[in-house]
Amino acid sequence: MTSRSRLQLYSFWRSSASYRVRIALNLKGLAYEYRAIHLVKDGGEQFRPEFTRLNPQARVPFLVDGGFALGQSLAILDYLDTLAPSPRLVPQEPALRARVLAFAHAIASDIQPLQNTGPLAYLTRELGVEEPRKDGWVRHWIERGLAALEQERAGAPDTPNVFGDAPTLADCVLVPQVYNVDRYRCDTSRFPRLYALAKRLESLPAFAAAHPSRQPDTPP
Amino acid sequence: MTSRSRLQLYSFWRSSASYRVRIALNLKGLAYEYRAIHLVKDGGEQFRPEFTRLNPQARVPFLVDGGFALGQSLAILDYLDTLAPSPRLVPQEPALRARVLAFAHAIASDIQPLQNTGPLAYLTRELGVEEPRKDGWVRHWIERGLAALEQERAGAPDTPNVFGDAPTLADCVLVPQVYNVDRYRCDTSRFPRLYALAKRLESLPAFAAAHPSRQPDTPP
Repeated sequence: MTSRSRLQLYSFWRSSASYRVRIALNLKGLAYEYRAIHLVKDGGEQFRPEFTRLNPQARVPFLVDGGFALGQSLAILDYLDTLAPSPRLVPQEPALRARVLAFAHAIASDIQPLQNTGPLAYLTRELGVEEPRKDGWVRHWIERGLAALEQERAGAPDTPNVFGDAPTLADCVLVPQVYNVDRYRCDTSRFPRLYALAKRLESLPAFAAAHPSRQPDTPP
Repeated sequence: MTSRSRLQLYSFWRSSASYRVRIALNLKGLAYEYRAIHLVKDGGEQFRPEFTRLNPQARVPFLVDGGFALGQSLAILDYLDTLAPSPRLVPQEPALRARVLAFAHAIASDIQPLQNTGPLAYLTRELGVEEPRKDGWVRHWIERGLAALEQERAGAPDTPNVFGDAPTLADCVLVPQVYNVDRYRCDTSRFPRLYALAKRLESLPAFAAAHPSRQPDTPP
């Protein structure tokens, strides 16, 4: 067994946080075993005792690296930089690093949690919010968040990646968010440059292989 | 002007993400100028053009360091480690670093965004969710999240800080979350050790000076 095949990723095909980690593993060329956790079926496989014993947070992604196990996608991406430093996802130069982290957190903290499976199920079941208004809530946070990030780039030159010529954490987070832009039919005229950039990235091999449509647990 | 007084923090007294940054600045002994942004009054001062020109995300905290400006509390805390390395909030040893980041993200991504001013206002105004059910939503995510973090610590020895004997990012994020535990009268029997730990930390000088009750914009 090589040091690479030791990695196991608990993932759900449609989970955008899992998608971030799949992109990062592919960018770094780290092989991993895919362990599917269905977040919806039968009330959610993440709540089964065999999984919560491993991860009390009952969430994916969840990475197992030999005796070490870790949840939270952004913590996992940072950890992968220590396993395989190239390409470095969290840059070391302070100003660039700060920009990359702030961009990633704006999506990971202010957009994604509001479209997550758990909160959406709560809106439906506990608060009686119907589908169109729930979708409106999701669109609101995606559009507000990405429009602000687009505005921050006003005047900056177009680059192959969100920050310059190499992939970072920012790309790993943007592309899965744009999957939900499409899923919820958001108004992309509020963030045309970020949308076009994500669509270009989506077609690159490391990103394409991580796409929700191509996972072992993707429905036929 | 010393290199310290150059920092300006846009903050709201009750914002738990601002509270994280205030703790970190105090721990590191970095002086800063407090700039109050009232998130509720008159529809929210964060949406005024003079602020959104600076920060299109229309959020606090927002740090200005001379010509460099940065939003997103966790990105700011990481940046402060480059300005003043002691105490180091994001540890360098890979396993500890991963644990600290995962702990912080579990709060910053899976709890705090769901109790944030913007989403709560949307629940009220757009989705017609009334106060008791809105408070129930907040309590649900706080209790579920902190109970899982408590479970991850089962069997670990009690330590002065969340991870060992020195403050990290984890402490800067836990204490403001526990302020909301009290505010929303959550069931602390689901996370007794973390609650007791946060209460001890809250009384230490760097934490106490950052408390919402002691800010320039705290209501009388």
